[in-house]
Amino acid sequence: MTERIRIAIAGYGNLGRGTEAAVAQATDMELVGIYTRRDPESVQPLGAGVPVRRLDDIDAHREEIDVLILCGGSKNDLPEQGPELAARFNTVDSYDTHARIPEYFEAVDAAARKGGNVSVISVGWDPGLFSLNRLFGEAILPQGETYTFWGKGLSQGHSDAVRRIPGVRGAVQYTVPVPAAIEQVRSGSRPTLTTRQKHTRECFVVLEEGASAEAVREAIVTMPDYFADYDTTVTFITEEELRRDHAAMPHGGFVIRSGDSGAGDKQVVEYSLTLESNPGFTSSVLVAYARAAHRLSQAGETGARSVFDIAPGLLSPRSAAELRRDLL
Amino acid sequence: MTERIRIAIAGYGNLGRGTEAAVAQATDMELVGIYTRRDPESVQPLGAGVPVRRLDDIDAHREEIDVLILCGGSKNDLPEQGPELAARFNTVDSYDTHARIPEYFEAVDAAARKGGNVSVISVGWDPGLFSLNRLFGEAILPQGETYTFWGKGLSQGHSDAVRRIPGVRGAVQYTVPVPAAIEQVRSGSRPTLTTRQKHTRECFVVLEEGASAEAVREAIVTMPDYFADYDTTVTFITEEELRRDHAAMPHGGFVIRSGDSGAGDKQVVEYSLTLESNPGFTSSVLVAYARAAHRLSQAGETGARSVFDIAPGLLSPRSAAELRRDLL
Repeated sequence: MTERIRIAIAGYGNLGRGTEAAVAQATDMELVGIYTRRDPESVQPLGAGVPVRRLDDIDAHREEIDVLILCGGSKNDLPEQGPELAARFNTVDSYDTHARIPEYFEAVDAAARKGGNVSVISVGWDPGLFSLNRLFGEAILPQGETYTFWGKGLSQGHSDAVRRIPGVRGAVQYTVPVPAAIEQVRSGSRPTLTTRQKHTRECFVVLEEGASAEAVREAIVTMPDYFADYDTTVTFITEEELRRDHAAMPHGGFVIRSGDSGAGDKQVVEYSLTLESNPGFTSSVLVAYARAAHRLSQAGETGARSVFDIAPGLLSPRSAAELRRDLL
Repeated sequence: MTERIRIAIAGYGNLGRGTEAAVAQATDMELVGIYTRRDPESVQPLGAGVPVRRLDDIDAHREEIDVLILCGGSKNDLPEQGPELAARFNTVDSYDTHARIPEYFEAVDAAARKGGNVSVISVGWDPGLFSLNRLFGEAILPQGETYTFWGKGLSQGHSDAVRRIPGVRGAVQYTVPVPAAIEQVRSGSRPTLTTRQKHTRECFVVLEEGASAEAVREAIVTMPDYFADYDTTVTFITEEELRRDHAAMPHGGFVIRSGDSGAGDKQVVEYSLTLESNPGFTSSVLVAYARAAHRLSQAGETGARSVFDIAPGLLSPRSAAELRRDLL
């Protein structure tokens, strides 16, 4: 048997825990360390015997790590950590601030090239698998429209925005695609859809004692960018209900390409995800791309890559001949 | 503007015509010739000014062709043509005899390497895009099951089998996925499904004068491999109805991966196609992979490839930076 790929994790929140569990499912990988900015003593890994260390000490372990999976957030962690760690390790991350991907790619690419490493950025489902399906859609059916719907699922950014409103003690926000819009798109009719026609937003809010439900509701539904352009419902619940009914992190969505092939025939391609756990799935994608990063690095490649640049066969532990025989 | 990719087509049936139409949609390509084993005078291309020539004369035009798209059949044409033409041209084909893909790959690979060409085999939707989704499914969710459903769609092979029965003047066969089975799989329950539980088969048959409907029905529903393991319905229609109602070639299907990510959460990934024209879509996929074949050849690569070996970005006429900015 060939050597197992030695994986380390930087950052141990929901995504880090998911990554630890995903590595445990990969028979060709082993987890050699979890690196955190917190006190390592305060971190309890799922698996026994996995060393937890300070992120500041990671350089001492460079020779033990084939690929470092970055599990920090896109807002505060990755813009710095991505390039910094790409200079020293092969990395995979889930950077998801769509508008800033070009500059992030450039920064990581420069660092990875200098360090002789491979770094796969923006891996997950969106960006990631949804991006791939947008690309396949327009490359195969150049005359047509692509539609992306998200949900039903818990949106971290929108939940945080609600939590920042004065008088809110706790909250979650679900993004819900409008069924009629999906049906219209599936039918091949290629409608022009406004923001409001594509998704609704459902908020479940626990109020601080004495807070005005009406004022909080108003602050939510009029919030620019986040809610003003949507039909938003606000339901007030107890802290116990929040804990009991809204602790999971389901998500999902659809990418639909509706196009005409050359002779005018309507062709509809749909990709959809129904996820019980968003971080659980995202981390499974990260781990598959860590395998690809390792192989590209072994082949002598360097620099940043996105999912667009990676041959799908590199994601599988199986040989090219096996894949052709069993899956083609 | 860069030079356009010069495409030629070998074989001018439904797939060849679809390919001609798909090349016309690609702004970075031009069709430089249609090559046929029939009398070129008998072939009427869709586009004015496209030269139609004898396949036997193709070597005289080697310098004008960047990629040759092979539009022959998998049973009689490609096993010979694939390796022969891969020795002289960059090629793309839709070889779809799943069980023989390994030997076909080896033969084409040897010829393409010797000739210094790139040949992408087994391109289309199954094999092709469905294969990719089977691969992504098991690479990302290694603990789970993959289900492939076909249809509703016209199956050429099964239609031919019915047409060979004595007393049958004309026939079409539709493969129909069982809705209850799809729903079960979508729910994440991972059932074990027999052949009969996954698909039904619907035949529409025109009888020869004086033929026995009962004998023909019996011959169909008991035919081993093709029908015996399925619930099959046979409907007798007139020749006019066959022409009027069954001339289109719709198809489609589903690839569903249902798996548990590391912490035990259920995750369901579904890819589905609803195609008004099977050859129209297959040829659109061929043309996108012809772009990739050209680029790989330009980069100095040689040998056979499958969809598993090709970075998705190579399918798009757009630059890597544009793709990251607009689609990632």
